[in-house]
Amino acid sequence: MRDAYVIGAGQTPFGTMPDESYRSLFSAALETAVDSVPYGLERDDIDEAVIGSLGVGGRQLGLSGPAATEHAGLHGIPSSRIENACAASGYSVRQAVQAVKSGMADVALAGGVEIMTDMSSDVTKYWLGVSGETEWERLTGTTFAGVYAQMASTYLDQYEATQEHLSMVAVKNHENGAKNPKAHLGFECSLDDAVGAPTVADPLNLYHCCPTSDGAAAVLIASEDVVDEYTDDPIRVAGVGAASERVGLFQRDDYTGIASSKKAGEQAYDEAGITPDDVDFAEIHDCFAIAELLAYEDLGFCERGEAHQLLEDGVTELDGELPVNASGGLKSKGHPIGATGAGQVAEAFKQLSGKAGDRQIDDPQYGLTHNVGGSGGAAVVHVLEREVAQ
Amino acid sequence: MRDAYVIGAGQTPFGTMPDESYRSLFSAALETAVDSVPYGLERDDIDEAVIGSLGVGGRQLGLSGPAATEHAGLHGIPSSRIENACAASGYSVRQAVQAVKSGMADVALAGGVEIMTDMSSDVTKYWLGVSGETEWERLTGTTFAGVYAQMASTYLDQYEATQEHLSMVAVKNHENGAKNPKAHLGFECSLDDAVGAPTVADPLNLYHCCPTSDGAAAVLIASEDVVDEYTDDPIRVAGVGAASERVGLFQRDDYTGIASSKKAGEQAYDEAGITPDDVDFAEIHDCFAIAELLAYEDLGFCERGEAHQLLEDGVTELDGELPVNASGGLKSKGHPIGATGAGQVAEAFKQLSGKAGDRQIDDPQYGLTHNVGGSGGAAVVHVLEREVAQ
Repeated sequence: MRDAYVIGAGQTPFGTMPDESYRSLFSAALETAVDSVPYGLERDDIDEAVIGSLGVGGRQLGLSGPAATEHAGLHGIPSSRIENACAASGYSVRQAVQAVKSGMADVALAGGVEIMTDMSSDVTKYWLGVSGETEWERLTGTTFAGVYAQMASTYLDQYEATQEHLSMVAVKNHENGAKNPKAHLGFECSLDDAVGAPTVADPLNLYHCCPTSDGAAAVLIASEDVVDEYTDDPIRVAGVGAASERVGLFQRDDYTGIASSKKAGEQAYDEAGITPDDVDFAEIHDCFAIAELLAYEDLGFCERGEAHQLLEDGVTELDGELPVNASGGLKSKGHPIGATGAGQVAEAFKQLSGKAGDRQIDDPQYGLTHNVGGSGGAAVVHVLEREVAQ
Repeated sequence: MRDAYVIGAGQTPFGTMPDESYRSLFSAALETAVDSVPYGLERDDIDEAVIGSLGVGGRQLGLSGPAATEHAGLHGIPSSRIENACAASGYSVRQAVQAVKSGMADVALAGGVEIMTDMSSDVTKYWLGVSGETEWERLTGTTFAGVYAQMASTYLDQYEATQEHLSMVAVKNHENGAKNPKAHLGFECSLDDAVGAPTVADPLNLYHCCPTSDGAAAVLIASEDVVDEYTDDPIRVAGVGAASERVGLFQRDDYTGIASSKKAGEQAYDEAGITPDDVDFAEIHDCFAIAELLAYEDLGFCERGEAHQLLEDGVTELDGELPVNASGGLKSKGHPIGATGAGQVAEAFKQLSGKAGDRQIDDPQYGLTHNVGGSGGAAVVHVLEREVAQ
């Protein structure tokens, strides 16, 4: 099957944007993506669109794909919405890749958008809760932070990591996010501040939890047959992996890893023909700090139970051997649910194109993105590759 | 790119099923699809799943793909939900075709499911309304029937068709549905009854409107590389077309046709290498009777303004030249939103496999399915072909 390439990608700032709608944000994100295509792209070149969104707040729950694309001036093309909780737009990128590989599109648009900050926290809590299991998690009173807190307490109990290691994730990601002008919480935080933050769901404190954000992102995928029309520095989608896992924690054998992440990672490495050692940087789904530790292990960056060692050794810092969440991650860049997965790919595209500004990683070849829905009910991993002249 | 085939498809009964959940219905639909595969299929053979659903009632708005597939015993595979209002599972079938054509899946499952009947009519009205445009249709008080009523009144004003022609759609589809043991409203109705029904949104009366239903459907798509393992009577996906249109009526130039249907139809014919004359039967999105008339014209079965003539001449009756909605259509078979598109493909599969029982059409080669989201914001058309030995 033919190869697919990222030819452009971008995002709006993530944050609190009371004057924006999901339509205006999606349009703005598309503009950043179009502007990033080296040789330019006409909107008419886009053959189809898939928009990732949970639909928080229930604004346009039906036809939100076509409603978003029409506002962005994309008329007549196939347009739909994909929902997979917080992995919605990781899956929309995957679907755009399928559209291109299938031969049904030469250029496909994967978008993601969410508006979250204009509701009371109780309403937001409901909408976050829908990403958990309904009957036995949300309706019995478990919050979404509570679900990850169960995973964190099991993990901290079983292995050597401590709450302070969780706080180190926050410090690292805020340090990176402070270099990202599009970050929601673009400030640094000290370890003392991170450790001393008020408890949200024990053992998780405020700095172990990402914010709720407004935002949108867009990724343009092109086939090998047309990629030369748009760029001479193509970023290849070298590997794609996706998997599901039981939605409710109570149905799983293990709380100290996410089976869907592991499976998706293995698939993506396999297709790309690489191992975790070849990855030069990763954007990881750190909705809660514990999720970043689990991902280090699920994605093969270290053995089970050893994630805290990577943090202690500075391996995943911006100047480390394997920078993780150079963008600031969900913790600092922000987490507008439906936009997160496409936003990760936009960051990887920037890094691989050498356009990441103050947070640029030195000459990367392989970047990995890892997007999780719920507490692991869905996961999707992309390996992107800057093709280096042989 | 490689060919895709329908190797199995089926549906639950459509109707009022207070004891079922969206999970139990999806599982039951999958079972009918698996049972219909001539040489059998193991669930492990399914490489990925896409579930179409609007999410009426907000039961499991997040991760409803994985939540449905895990209940059906499909663990670990990529699973997601696609939303395109009433065209959700027409699009899930299209996406399963893309998955197979892309080489990323050998067997892909397209499902659709909706639970609608356990809510008060006000709540249902809200959930139907979300398929219209939010700001300028739903929030200004226009019901979904009201949107189609505007299309109907314009059409009846502009052309020769009358309200009685709309009622003839109901009579025809109920006559067919009475032969379908899975129909929600599986009874015949007389033209007098249909004409005399109470008004819902003038000029549409009760018999010009489909019911709200519970139900699920499932379609199994396989690649040309593996199709022989499952059947020696493969039904080829000969053509796929999909398009969008402005979601709100007020943004369109014309109310007497649906541009997305027209475009999707043309694409599907083009890919299949056929013309409308080659179509042996069609399952058409008759959410309101006017929609069936518009579709006759949008899909090229007759000229603009001539749809009523097909009804008068009996062309689209079960024993006519071009039977439309042999299943009973949305009007009689029922319309569980997310299940409708996959249910249409299930009917086409049955007809092309010669297994449609009392409503079997004589030796068809090409069947068309036409699924519309909202009042045309999205449309998707499939042309299925029974391959005839040369």
